[in-house]
Amino acid sequence: MKPFIHVNCAMSADGKLAGSDRKQVRISSDEDIARVKEMRRRYDSILVGVGTVVSDDPHLTVKGLSYDENPIRVVLDTHGRIPEDARVLDDRAPTVIITCKSCEKNWGNRATVVRCGDNRIDLPVAMHLLARELGIESVMVEGGGEVIASFFRDRLVDRYTVFVGGLLIGGRTAPTPADGDGWVAPEGIRLDLQSAEVMGNGALLTFSPRY
Amino acid sequence: MKPFIHVNCAMSADGKLAGSDRKQVRISSDEDIARVKEMRRRYDSILVGVGTVVSDDPHLTVKGLSYDENPIRVVLDTHGRIPEDARVLDDRAPTVIITCKSCEKNWGNRATVVRCGDNRIDLPVAMHLLARELGIESVMVEGGGEVIASFFRDRLVDRYTVFVGGLLIGGRTAPTPADGDGWVAPEGIRLDLQSAEVMGNGALLTFSPRY
Repeated sequence: MKPFIHVNCAMSADGKLAGSDRKQVRISSDEDIARVKEMRRRYDSILVGVGTVVSDDPHLTVKGLSYDENPIRVVLDTHGRIPEDARVLDDRAPTVIITCKSCEKNWGNRATVVRCGDNRIDLPVAMHLLARELGIESVMVEGGGEVIASFFRDRLVDRYTVFVGGLLIGGRTAPTPADGDGWVAPEGIRLDLQSAEVMGNGALLTFSPRY
Repeated sequence: MKPFIHVNCAMSADGKLAGSDRKQVRISSDEDIARVKEMRRRYDSILVGVGTVVSDDPHLTVKGLSYDENPIRVVLDTHGRIPEDARVLDDRAPTVIITCKSCEKNWGNRATVVRCGDNRIDLPVAMHLLARELGIESVMVEGGGEVIASFFRDRLVDRYTVFVGGLLIGGRTAPTPADGDGWVAPEGIRLDLQSAEVMGNGALLTFSPRY
């Protein structure tokens, strides 16, 4: 039992999520931003890693939606590093923090905490708990690259969409859609291209993993 | 005066040219391979960096073409590191080695040598010399990521085509289409998307830089 997991991101024409200094730069077109907004409405939850929370401090909400209408915000935070004043902890939407059992931090009534795995998050178990304990049937994974690589490594991804935008960033240490320590699998993971669609100054590619 | 410069490469759906161990893996579809072969026929020259020669030892020729019909092979080799038995030095096509003035290595009659820049190659001057001295009107740059980043940094690229293939590789240190020390320009270089075309299990995106 696990939710449907959809990884969505935007990369530059040279395969980067941002610059090597992690500085954000706009990669998505207006059309892609509208698509992501619409997608967020349809998903039960939006998931990011704590690295994204620390560097970008996103709200992860949809403008105009109430607390109950917004998707549940899920943050992977192995060591309890979310800043106290992070926007994902505000009262605009429910928040779930996934951490491991050795993390002793508490977040009071600001977030529901899921603890699984001893010293590192057990991602398959965490996804199982989201579905069984919290009734979450769909997860939109927005990044960063370390988190996305973990989802692929554990073969949890059901769909992968990537917008390739008209920008060249450069930098051998810049974050990419799937970072991590090396190959996600010995020969990589084959993906079937489902569609390619021009959306403003870039193209949206939709893939299904072939595990 | 400079040749028309077309950068062409294939990246995985997560923006990699290869794995972090540099191990080659097939990213292109059959259709894309046929396209690249046809493209090589039409270009005066094919350029790669010495890193690509050392790791992949490519021929850079088109099967069935004679010495005179093949495009000229151009290798950027700052420190004269091309192995003596590299395939690009065989007798199937002419070869040009671009190095800097401090490099004292000689290649005898196996290659034409262009020396420019004191301790590092001056790429704009090198391209000027290819056009003026050798009559090369078009260059297809095939990689790797360090070389491609240098061409963008010097604003020499006229067209950029990237095939995005149905494969997920992973790895934060894997080579990407534009590596180098960081941003190619302060906010990156904007590219205009010219077309997006499905070619087998991947999509070919064509961009024009907006300098």
